Amino acid sequence: MKALVTAGGTHEYIDSVRSIINHSTGRLGSIIADLFRQNGADVTYVCGEQAVLPSAPGIRVTKIKNTRRLLETLEQLLAGHKFDCVVHSMAVSDFTPHTGLTLEDIIDNIASAVGGHDYSGDELKDIIRAAVLESGKPLGDSKKISSKTEDMMLWLKQTPKIIRRFRKLQPGTVLVGFKLLSGAAESELLRAAQTLLAKNSCDYVLANDLRDISGDSHKAMLIDGHNKIVGRAETKQEIAQIIYRAVSEKICSAAR
Amino acid sequence: MKALVTAGGTHEYIDSVRSIINHSTGRLGSIIADLFRQNGADVTYVCGEQAVLPSAPGIRVTKIKNTRRLLETLEQLLAGHKFDCVVHSMAVSDFTPHTGLTLEDIIDNIASAVGGHDYSGDELKDIIRAAVLESGKPLGDSKKISSKTEDMMLWLKQTPKIIRRFRKLQPGTVLVGFKLLSGAAESELLRAAQTLLAKNSCDYVLANDLRDISGDSHKAMLIDGHNKIVGRAETKQEIAQIIYRAVSEKICSAAR
Repeated sequence: MKALVTAGGTHEYIDSVRSIINHSTGRLGSIIADLFRQNGADVTYVCGEQAVLPSAPGIRVTKIKNTRRLLETLEQLLAGHKFDCVVHSMAVSDFTPHTGLTLEDIIDNIASAVGGHDYSGDELKDIIRAAVLESGKPLGDSKKISSKTEDMMLWLKQTPKIIRRFRKLQPGTVLVGFKLLSGAAESELLRAAQTLLAKNSCDYVLANDLRDISGDSHKAMLIDGHNKIVGRAETKQEIAQIIYRAVSEKICSAAR
Repeated sequence: MKALVTAGGTHEYIDSVRSIINHSTGRLGSIIADLFRQNGADVTYVCGEQAVLPSAPGIRVTKIKNTRRLLETLEQLLAGHKFDCVVHSMAVSDFTPHTGLTLEDIIDNIASAVGGHDYSGDELKDIIRAAVLESGKPLGDSKKISSKTEDMMLWLKQTPKIIRRFRKLQPGTVLVGFKLLSGAAESELLRAAQTLLAKNSCDYVLANDLRDISGDSHKAMLIDGHNKIVGRAETKQEIAQIIYRAVSEKICSAAR
C-alpha cells in the first residue's frame, strides 16, 4: 500500500518578521504514519516545518512552510506517484495575508469617494469596494509593516482548498479528511464532518473537537461515505488504528 | 549584578487554532543570558514558549505566550526585584487580533449608513468609522473563525509598548533595547535606533538588520545614550560581549 500522510500546521508570512500559524503539533499525523509503516505501507509524510516526525524507519519526509509550497509539493507528488490512500491530517491555513490597511486610510478613501454625492444601491457598493481595495498596501516579503498605527487591518485572502486537489489528481485514492471544531455538540460536529465529506468527495472523515484533546487523550469519530460512524477512538493511537483498519479494508475490498 | 534578559517571540491568538507569531528563535538572548551568568550575574530569563533556553546553570526561566502575559509577568517581576540591567531582546508583537470582518459586511454596513444621504467632511468620516467598527465580529478564544468568506479582514489593535514599562518601573536600571530593520541602509538603521533610544529612555540600543543575520553571522552596532556607536559585532557571541561590557562599565561607573 502506498500512503500519503500530511501533518502539522502551515506558516503564512505576513512580512519578514511575522507570520500566521495554524496550531498543530503533527503528533497525530506522525503516529498515523508510523502505524501505516509498521503495517508494511510505503509512506510519504508531508508536514509543517515544526511538526513532530514519525519514528519508523523508511518514511520519506518533506517539510513545507506555507500553503503555496504545500500545494506545489502535493501537485508534484500526486502527478508522479499513485497513492492508494491519502490521510490529510494537516492543519492548513484557510487564509493568507494579502495587504495591510489602516483604519484611517479606509475612512479617508471612502469619504473622498462618496462625499458630496448621493450614490446608492450597487453603484454605491462598487465605489466603497474600490475605495477599500485601494487602501491596501502590499505587505511584501522583504519589509516589516509599520507599527505606528493604532488600528491595523490585515486583509486575508482565502487559500486554495488543498483537500479538493487530492480527489482531482488521484480519483481512485482512499481519501481521509479531518474536521476539527471547538466546543461543538456531537451532532454539530457530525454535521460538519458530513459536509466536509460530501463537498470534497472524501471516503472517510475523522471528526474531533479541541475540547476533547489533551495530552494522550484524544476523542474522535470516523465517519464513512454513507455518513455512518465506523469507529470511535479515545487516544491518538486508537485514531491511527481505526483509520488504518478502515482504509486497508476499503483498499482490499476494491481489489477483490 | 542582577540582570533581566528577554528573548524569543510572542504568540498572539487569533482564535483557538490560529495565532500571529513574531519570528525569533531566542538564540541571541540565550547567548546573552549565558554570558552574563558566566560573568557572575544573577540572571532572570523571560522568553517565548519556543525560545532557545540558556545553558548556564542557575538562570531562572519564565516562559510566556502572548504580550498580555508578558506584561503581567514583567510588572510582577519589576515590582518585586531591583534589576541592575534589562536586556530586552524579545520580539514582541506590536499588534494583537481584536475582531474579524468580512469585506462584504464592511461594504454593506457603510452603504446602508451613507446611501441616499449626502454627508460630507467629519460627519461622513464618523459615520464610516462607526460602520466599519460595527462590522467587526469578536474572534473569541473558544471559537474558530469561519473559513467561508473569500476576503477576511483581521482587525489588529496595538499592544502596550513593553519597553516603556521597564524605565517606568525601574528608573535606575541600565536598559538595552533592540532595533531590527529589514534591508535598510546603515544610516536609516542608526536613525531608527536613535529614535527608539530617545523615545523609550534606553541607555543602549542594539541595531541590526535581518539581511545581516544568517547562521552564526550576525552583524550589529551598539549605540549609547549620546547616539554614539560604542561597539560593533559580527557574531551573536560578539553581540553578547559588547552588551555585557557596556552594561557592566555603566553599572560600575554609576557605583563609583
